[in-house]
Amino acid sequence: MPSDALAYVREHNVRFLDELKSLLRIPSVSTLPEHAGDCRKAAEFLAAELRRIGMENVRLIETGGHPLVYADWLHAEGKPTMLAYGHYDVQPPDPLDEWLSPPFEPTERNGNIYARGAVDDKGQVYMHVKAFEALLATTGKLPVNVRVIIEGEEEVGGEGIANFVASNPPELKADFALVSDTEMFAPDLPTLCVGLRGMIYTELEVRGAKTDLHSGVYGGAAPNPFFALALILSQLKDENGHILIPGFYDGIIPPSAEELKAWESLPFDEENYRIHEVGASELVGEPGYSVLERTWARPTLEVHGMPGGFIGAGAKTVIPARAVAKVSMRLVPGMTPQRSYDLYQKYVKHLIPAGVEVETRLIHSGEACLIPVDNPYIQAATHALYEVWGKETVFIRSGGSIPIVGDFDRHLGLPCVMMGFGLPDDNLHAPNEKFNLKNFFLGIEALVRFFEEAGKIEPASKG
Amino acid sequence: MPSDALAYVREHNVRFLDELKSLLRIPSVSTLPEHAGDCRKAAEFLAAELRRIGMENVRLIETGGHPLVYADWLHAEGKPTMLAYGHYDVQPPDPLDEWLSPPFEPTERNGNIYARGAVDDKGQVYMHVKAFEALLATTGKLPVNVRVIIEGEEEVGGEGIANFVASNPPELKADFALVSDTEMFAPDLPTLCVGLRGMIYTELEVRGAKTDLHSGVYGGAAPNPFFALALILSQLKDENGHILIPGFYDGIIPPSAEELKAWESLPFDEENYRIHEVGASELVGEPGYSVLERTWARPTLEVHGMPGGFIGAGAKTVIPARAVAKVSMRLVPGMTPQRSYDLYQKYVKHLIPAGVEVETRLIHSGEACLIPVDNPYIQAATHALYEVWGKETVFIRSGGSIPIVGDFDRHLGLPCVMMGFGLPDDNLHAPNEKFNLKNFFLGIEALVRFFEEAGKIEPASKG
Repeated sequence: MPSDALAYVREHNVRFLDELKSLLRIPSVSTLPEHAGDCRKAAEFLAAELRRIGMENVRLIETGGHPLVYADWLHAEGKPTMLAYGHYDVQPPDPLDEWLSPPFEPTERNGNIYARGAVDDKGQVYMHVKAFEALLATTGKLPVNVRVIIEGEEEVGGEGIANFVASNPPELKADFALVSDTEMFAPDLPTLCVGLRGMIYTELEVRGAKTDLHSGVYGGAAPNPFFALALILSQLKDENGHILIPGFYDGIIPPSAEELKAWESLPFDEENYRIHEVGASELVGEPGYSVLERTWARPTLEVHGMPGGFIGAGAKTVIPARAVAKVSMRLVPGMTPQRSYDLYQKYVKHLIPAGVEVETRLIHSGEACLIPVDNPYIQAATHALYEVWGKETVFIRSGGSIPIVGDFDRHLGLPCVMMGFGLPDDNLHAPNEKFNLKNFFLGIEALVRFFEEAGKIEPASKG
Repeated sequence: MPSDALAYVREHNVRFLDELKSLLRIPSVSTLPEHAGDCRKAAEFLAAELRRIGMENVRLIETGGHPLVYADWLHAEGKPTMLAYGHYDVQPPDPLDEWLSPPFEPTERNGNIYARGAVDDKGQVYMHVKAFEALLATTGKLPVNVRVIIEGEEEVGGEGIANFVASNPPELKADFALVSDTEMFAPDLPTLCVGLRGMIYTELEVRGAKTDLHSGVYGGAAPNPFFALALILSQLKDENGHILIPGFYDGIIPPSAEELKAWESLPFDEENYRIHEVGASELVGEPGYSVLERTWARPTLEVHGMPGGFIGAGAKTVIPARAVAKVSMRLVPGMTPQRSYDLYQKYVKHLIPAGVEVETRLIHSGEACLIPVDNPYIQAATHALYEVWGKETVFIRSGGSIPIVGDFDRHLGLPCVMMGFGLPDDNLHAPNEKFNLKNFFLGIEALVRFFEEAGKIEPASKG
């Protein structure tokens, strides 16, 4: 009976949150080598908790990078098998001085918990664990067979899990996947995400002189790598946000008329979004496309940082020998990372100014994906969400990238239910990341109900 | 008799170098607040040494920033008074990993001493001190009246000394100035510098969203400050190095035909310069001007660093809320810092892309200057140099900026003898800065001879 499990969730809310705080205190920043030990610590924390609540075969699976956490519970005979995915790694917390409370000291304010990883994705991973706990503790079983896989490299490209998934191991045999790493379109609006952008993350390194030079003595004769980068970047995208790489848009599959119509009816207030989410004087991007189309269904090209030269306070009159631009592109259905990178690299070669050399590097990439909604697991999810929030589910896409979702589809043939509980103002990847506590608690209840609903489905493959 | 003093210089070479090493070990990086104590330590080191050798009225003069060092010796009745200028502050040493020996551990290699500040300008300041010592120790007097003023903010704009000079204090009353902060055009080629570029050092700060944003979720709608900077920078200068700020070149006074002809006869090998000094595949800059014209007599615009966003290893998918470009421009005779900055600021306002705000800041500035060579002090310097190197002096300009030289002229009416002993490959402002030891030792002798020659000149203003 889910009602016992739901009562258990409500009864143990305080402890659940305390446990989450312990997990959030571990600075498992996957991109920074000095935090490799913390990543492992987060993995071990989750493994210990999965073991404690009664999951079986709990273990860390080693990869070239940070380990995967695996667990299962496979005693729901004749029921579908769910692969529950999440990640324990987090983005770097900088710029540190913009956090109101320290990123790895979880702090409650205004009904939210603030910490790096609060919503992306430790909080949501922990909801899965607590939903399993509630059911196991009150009924001694789960309504579906469950396999849990939690990775530690989502924020750095997820190479370890991608290789593991590509090998199609028995540990991942399932009927559907559950991913809670997305958001609700608005507070109290049940939401399933059915599309993600892909991405390529690159570095452009420009080298000019053999060493840093005095800009007075050599200015006017020596090439300046930053200026070369400015010239190149300014030719990658126009002022309207249209990417200028030849052929880049070829083959893009636009959203269907039906999907576009559904997006139009979403409660989206562009002015509110501009002021309260973005906080800029004006939104940018390709004319002729709505904000949702631009961020969900159109590619984009962004510069994330430009290391090199002098970045301290004050003045240093140097022409640096080298400078780098970290440039990523988001991709949409119909584009592939490899083709997009090839076009980009080829185009950049034509843009190299005199006197410098340019090296293009692909740091990581992931495919875009689009989930068909006509499957019973998506329907089961909408039922569960309705029971908790009393509203019909909206189907959205996300502009972000969760490459593993495409891998689950391609390699394992799993439809993916992206049931996420973040909110649009959660400051993902930014200072003051937060997670709404109401969503954390109600989301656990929705997951319990979803597992129950999914348990009623006849699996395509028995066992 | 200078011969005694010259013998003294040769006899004490080893000690002179050891003392210089002690000065070079002090990391007096003026732009970094954490080195303020080191700047004062360098000032006190020089004051103590000036006192020890017999200079008088030695003291630190406080400014808003790092202190000035003052000393005098005013007993050469009826002789001219020289104002000897130098600076004890140095550029930051980064990038640290490109130094073959640590920047503040002076190391001898191949007849050079390697350290930050070796040639710019501690080594050359110390040559003045040792020339005074040689004369005072062997003759008990100096052939000219001497005032010494050494600043600690040359690398950050020299505001303290500029204010002091502008107040035209009695401490700076003199007939001519000596500045040793330039270089010889080639090894063993006696050189006087008679022109300097001016400069404005600025920051362009671009602000977009109110906080850092996830580039997946917001890419396509949120403005990207780095991309805005790329667009702006790419419109400040064209690929040929021509600055695009309207009116920027108006009023420039080109070098005379005579000066250009003299430059053409200088031993300058462009290919050697490209390979061994710059080390780039190609030189850049305005077509139709020689390298010497481009670096000495044409303005330039350079980008020194672009703080903001994510600059660590790996990937962070962030659209930063703000990004900065450190941009400086070198100015030539006929241009003023204020007018150049105004034109730049006005032009940048027209280039601001949608969705971002741009703040332009002037960090510091200095006037260009051109020294008339028809004065007896310049002639005395050429005689002294001839006696040491046996060659006629060449007159060059420098692309760098020593704002104080213009201030000496404007506020104190002092002609300036820029007798410098650096070499073109000394890596000023770059890793592995060095000073040629032969130039250090012979330069002290040339200074002793110069003071003797200057002592023969009838000063315009008696005492």
